[in-house]
Amino acid sequence: MKAQLQGKDFLQIGDFTKDNLMDLIKLAIQLKTMQKNGDPHKYLEGKTLAMIFEKSSTRTRVSFETGMYQLGGIAQFLNTNDLQLGKGETIADTAKVLSRYVDVIMIRTYGHDIALELAENASIPVINGLTDDAHPCQVLTDLMTVYEKKKQFQGLKLAFVGDGNNMSQSLLMGCAIMGIDCHVATPKGYEIKQSILKQAKEKAASNTSIIQTHDPYEAVKDADIIYTDVWTSMGFESEKKARQEAFREYQVNENLVKGAKDDYLFMHCLPAIRDQEVTSEVIDGENSVVFDQAENRLHAQKAVLSSIV
Amino acid sequence: MKAQLQGKDFLQIGDFTKDNLMDLIKLAIQLKTMQKNGDPHKYLEGKTLAMIFEKSSTRTRVSFETGMYQLGGIAQFLNTNDLQLGKGETIADTAKVLSRYVDVIMIRTYGHDIALELAENASIPVINGLTDDAHPCQVLTDLMTVYEKKKQFQGLKLAFVGDGNNMSQSLLMGCAIMGIDCHVATPKGYEIKQSILKQAKEKAASNTSIIQTHDPYEAVKDADIIYTDVWTSMGFESEKKARQEAFREYQVNENLVKGAKDDYLFMHCLPAIRDQEVTSEVIDGENSVVFDQAENRLHAQKAVLSSIV
Amino acid sequence: MKAQLQGKDFLQIGDFTKDNLMDLIKLAIQLKTMQKNGDPHKYLEGKTLAMIFEKSSTRTRVSFETGMYQLGGIAQFLNTNDLQLGKGETIADTAKVLSRYVDVIMIRTYGHDIALELAENASIPVINGLTDDAHPCQVLTDLMTVYEKKKQFQGLKLAFVGDGNNMSQSLLMGCAIMGIDCHVATPKGYEIKQSILKQAKEKAASNTSIIQTHDPYEAVKDADIIYTDVWTSMGFESEKKARQEAFREYQVNENLVKGAKDDYLFMHCLPAIRDQEVTSEVIDGENSVVFDQAENRLHAQKAVLSSIV
Repeated sequence: MKAQLQGKDFLQIGDFTKDNLMDLIKLAIQLKTMQKNGDPHKYLEGKTLAMIFEKSSTRTRVSFETGMYQLGGIAQFLNTNDLQLGKGETIADTAKVLSRYVDVIMIRTYGHDIALELAENASIPVINGLTDDAHPCQVLTDLMTVYEKKKQFQGLKLAFVGDGNNMSQSLLMGCAIMGIDCHVATPKGYEIKQSILKQAKEKAASNTSIIQTHDPYEAVKDADIIYTDVWTSMGFESEKKARQEAFREYQVNENLVKGAKDDYLFMHCLPAIRDQEVTSEVIDGENSVVFDQAENRLHAQKAVLSSIV
Repeated sequence: MKAQLQGKDFLQIGDFTKDNLMDLIKLAIQLKTMQKNGDPHKYLEGKTLAMIFEKSSTRTRVSFETGMYQLGGIAQFLNTNDLQLGKGETIADTAKVLSRYVDVIMIRTYGHDIALELAENASIPVINGLTDDAHPCQVLTDLMTVYEKKKQFQGLKLAFVGDGNNMSQSLLMGCAIMGIDCHVATPKGYEIKQSILKQAKEKAASNTSIIQTHDPYEAVKDADIIYTDVWTSMGFESEKKARQEAFREYQVNENLVKGAKDDYLFMHCLPAIRDQEVTSEVIDGENSVVFDQAENRLHAQKAVLSSIV
Repeated sequence: MKAQLQGKDFLQIGDFTKDNLMDLIKLAIQLKTMQKNGDPHKYLEGKTLAMIFEKSSTRTRVSFETGMYQLGGIAQFLNTNDLQLGKGETIADTAKVLSRYVDVIMIRTYGHDIALELAENASIPVINGLTDDAHPCQVLTDLMTVYEKKKQFQGLKLAFVGDGNNMSQSLLMGCAIMGIDCHVATPKGYEIKQSILKQAKEKAASNTSIIQTHDPYEAVKDADIIYTDVWTSMGFESEKKARQEAFREYQVNENLVKGAKDDYLFMHCLPAIRDQEVTSEVIDGENSVVFDQAENRLHAQKAVLSSIV
């Protein structure tokens, strides 16, 4: 796979084929085993990763920094105070300069166009660590977690209940590509973008159902996986009150999850606000795999890094 | 010792026995020699330390980061802007997530309960890098420095002159455990907590005197070590004026130190404000060991890291 | 050369002889080749660099952090929020403490006296990563770039058009030492300091012309290199409007560069504000070497680090 993906950017899940993603997932699982067993896998010895953060983060920061180190390289943490991307210097110039110093860039920013412009001007691979439109590292992690727990994608149904944001949009695309039925239940006014829904339907095989609904019970019915995210993502804080009102009926609670299969997985990309988008009973219950999922960020990103760098 | 302390948290000095501390001190001295001689001691190769800072710091930051690197591992610097502990995410969730990515956590925070909650929820060891109640890394360093300079603890007297804060409280406990007579002289209203004093007396052998007084001259009389700290610690800035008034008679100056033994050691955990809690004459004089003491943070913390991880 | 420069500070270009600088340039070019070829050069294995930043930076930060890592060591990023240099603690104490933990310090600050005081009190080498008076790392990089492209210094003419700031002053001194004719064209009121001009003339061989003028056309005439910098450097933001007025006739544009030799090099230390101090045509044109120049920061600083540590 190295040969296939080397030098490629990792900007959105839809840029990759089912085979690409399957290879990355298998590599991630293999790297996880190697790490647990203490088997060396310094595939990126001597390499450097520049991590640009315009939004704060725990998981992305620590998992990339640890992952790069476990691969034999090193990560540099650059936040907006240290590096005024697109203010003091054009994005194009920043991309060209960083390309002279490091081997790969990870960027967490607001506008997806910023990540695209950075990638276009960099001569090294760029990884999207979260933009307003896409969160491909999280989706790859989620697919890996599902595959680890369910051993297959065929015949599974995933229900996303909540906001039609970057997370659910990327997830929908990932499910479409891998052949997981994906039903997204959002309040009115918070739907997934029509263009994304259309693309996902095009990517999906004919027997994979890709559905946007407003009914969480319909989405969750017989689901193998229930997924949610915070109601108010970073950058939308001013809408907080209106959102709490709008999402009230979309809480993942004991009543809602009754409709799912008995062995359903509860997933959340974290951080979670307990008793808002999900009750403590559910997120701390036995069907919840949220911490395994968090851990898998490390392994999935190591798979991406070792494939593209 | 590895077997004894492996997996343990390092939260407060009172959690450890005299033997534990003696082992750590001897290991610290041995690691110091190895480092000076260039002998390899990569005991934590491939391991990662997450350092969480809610208060700024020079010594703690640089000594932990250097120490972890000299042990073959790597440290990650996480400040409150990058990681909103207990705000965006519960402390318990942060602990559980970090436990999936790194091998050990160091936290410098305000409330001691935060460090305790983090340790309780983490499946990896947690080191207290300073809380409002305790500063065990500094105390271990101080004991190491005393042992290095005086070759023993038996029969020594330490006078702490100043604020009954986290520093003096932890130091009192350390002295009690190791059998150093400890006399703490504070202004009225700034005494060591009664509960700490009681605990220290319980820990102390019957021939070790643990005394809280308001008379600095009494405390310093025949002392082997005189220790002070800033009058206004981080988090107490609003009390600055009242404190400068209250502590006026507690300055460590030429007049006060006359009462100590000729070969007394002057110690301070730094940063120091010259001609406030200590005169330049004293801190820059020949009895002062403050920079050796600062250096020993590196070696003492390396001993802790290599023992618990 | 190691023997010659080991333990020395790197504070201003004028502290070094022509031979010193020539050795550093040749070492930088050699290190660049080794890096491109993947030849190991871990000359600083196990060593740590503390980087103190009072001004934000992209190039300096990333190039030093990557460089130190490629040399087998590690760099620590300390910004003013993490380390209140000269506020919470004296510069002298900070210097003494850091000397106990790390092997070399790089400082980017405002007052040049701060860098000098730090160096005076540190027992380890200190590198000036930019002060209000000097930018020696950039000048060494620039000289390396000129040598790489022109294969010699003899007979070259460099025109600096713009602000008589730390950049042009350091550059003037570097040119004087290496024997490059240097003509600096600034607006009235923005000239290079008389003391620097005098020193540069003293350093220069008799056949090297060191000239301060107000006429950019005169400076650029037959130049081999045209160099400019932003009109408003960090710390001078309040003067921005007045400066834009004063520097209007000092833009490096197609009309101005006509006077230079056909194979002139356009250089800029970046970040650049296009169509202010330089037009897009020029900076993005075929004579521009600004990204090669940016890259050379990495190699030149690795040469400094491996020589003084």
